[in-house]
Amino acid sequence: MAVRDALLRSPLFQDAPTRILDFAVRAVVERTYEAHEAIVTQDTQGEALYFLQEGRARVLRESATGRERIVGFLYSGDVFGEGAALGGPGRGATVVAETTVRALVMYRSELSTLFERHPKMLWNLARLLARRVDALNEELIAMSLDSEASMAHLLLKVYRQRGAAGEGDAAFLPLTSPDLTACLGTSRETTARTLKKFTSRKLVKVEGGGLRLLDVDGIERTLYDND
Amino acid sequence: MAVRDALLRSPLFQDAPTRILDFAVRAVVERTYEAHEAIVTQDTQGEALYFLQEGRARVLRESATGRERIVGFLYSGDVFGEGAALGGPGRGATVVAETTVRALVMYRSELSTLFERHPKMLWNLARLLARRVDALNEELIAMSLDSEASMAHLLLKVYRQRGAAGEGDAAFLPLTSPDLTACLGTSRETTARTLKKFTSRKLVKVEGGGLRLLDVDGIERTLYDND
Repeated sequence: MAVRDALLRSPLFQDAPTRILDFAVRAVVERTYEAHEAIVTQDTQGEALYFLQEGRARVLRESATGRERIVGFLYSGDVFGEGAALGGPGRGATVVAETTVRALVMYRSELSTLFERHPKMLWNLARLLARRVDALNEELIAMSLDSEASMAHLLLKVYRQRGAAGEGDAAFLPLTSPDLTACLGTSRETTARTLKKFTSRKLVKVEGGGLRLLDVDGIERTLYDND
Repeated sequence: MAVRDALLRSPLFQDAPTRILDFAVRAVVERTYEAHEAIVTQDTQGEALYFLQEGRARVLRESATGRERIVGFLYSGDVFGEGAALGGPGRGATVVAETTVRALVMYRSELSTLFERHPKMLWNLARLLARRVDALNEELIAMSLDSEASMAHLLLKVYRQRGAAGEGDAAFLPLTSPDLTACLGTSRETTARTLKKFTSRKLVKVEGGGLRLLDVDGIERTLYDND
C-alpha cells in the first residue's frame, strides 16, 4: 500500500488537508518486522508513533505483578505507541509481529510539528483514545461475566476488527488455544472446556492455526444469554 | 475552592498560560449536584466536559448486554465527559453524585475555542486518556486473577485515588458490600467470602458505610501472592 493511502486509512488523518498529508508522507520512515519480532517493548523508552500498514501484531502487557496477558491485536490501519509518543513514562505494552509487519514510524519531533501545524490531529488522537477507554470498560464488564461470555466477547471483538481492517477471511481468527488462554486470563482447563462447548454447539470450528466462526449470531446470543 | 485553583488542579491546564486560564475561568459554569443525582447519563447526547471541584461521584456503565458495573469513582481534580465533549456518539457512562458535588462545566464551543487557542491542552487531554488506557489494561489483568487479587487491586486503586485527591482520611474507603460487588462483577457470595478473608487477616475493617484499610502493604502482598 502506498504511504499516503496507509496514512489516510488512519483516523488520525481524518479531514487532514493536503499540505499536512504531504508533510506526513515525508516525515514517516517505513520499517519491516519479521514474524515474532518485537516492534516496541514494554517499559522501555520510545518516542515514536506507529501506523500498522500491513500484517498483524499482538499487544502484550505484563502487569505490575508479573502476569502477562494478550490485551489486543493490531491490524492494518491501527495506530500504536501513542502513550510514549505523547511523553508518557515508557511503553505501556509490548507489540510483537505475528506475520511480516510493515509499519510507518513517525518520531516525536515530526509528530509535534504535525500537531502544531494541524491541531485537529490531536483532537482525532484524543477521540481515538476516548473510544479505546469505552471499549476497555465494555471488555471489563464482559470479562466479569462467566467464561462463555468472555470467550464470546473476545471472538466477536477480533472478528469485527478483522472485518474493519479489510482482512480477506474475517471469520477465520488466527487464535490458538494458548492465545485464548492469554487473552482471557483463565486457566488452560477453563479455556479448553469453554472451547469444547462452543465447538459442540457448532459456533466455531478449530482449523489449522486458529478458529473459524461458523455462527456469529449464535456467538452473540451466547454473550447475551450468559448475562 | 476558587474556580481558578480548581482548574489549575486539573492535568488539562498543566503549563497553561495566564490568558488561557483567564478565558477558562470565564467560560465555565459552576453547578452543584445533590447526592444520588445523575450528572451525566449514559447514551444520552451531551457536549460538556466536567471538572469535579468538590465531592465524590461514581461512574456506572451498562454493557451492551444490560449488565451494570461500577467502573470507577471520581474525586476532586478529576475530569469527565471527555468522550462526548470530543464529539463521540453519546455519553459512555453514567456519573452519579455520591455526596454533594460541585463541578465546573465547560461546553463544547468554549472547549473548542480553548483547544484552538492553546493546542497544548489537547495534548494534555490525550496524555490523560493514554494513561487511562494503561490503567484499564492493568485492571483487566488484575480482574482475570482470583477474587482476592481483584479485591486487593480495587482497594489499592481507590485508596491511591483518594490520596491523590487530598481526601483527609484516605484509608477509609466509602465502599459498601453492594458497591464491591458492582465494582468486581462477582456474585454477592464471592464478595462476602473474600471480604471475610481480608477482615480475618486484619487487612481491612468494616466501618459505618465503608471499609478501613488497616494494612496497605499486606493488601499489596495479597495482590502479588495470588498471582
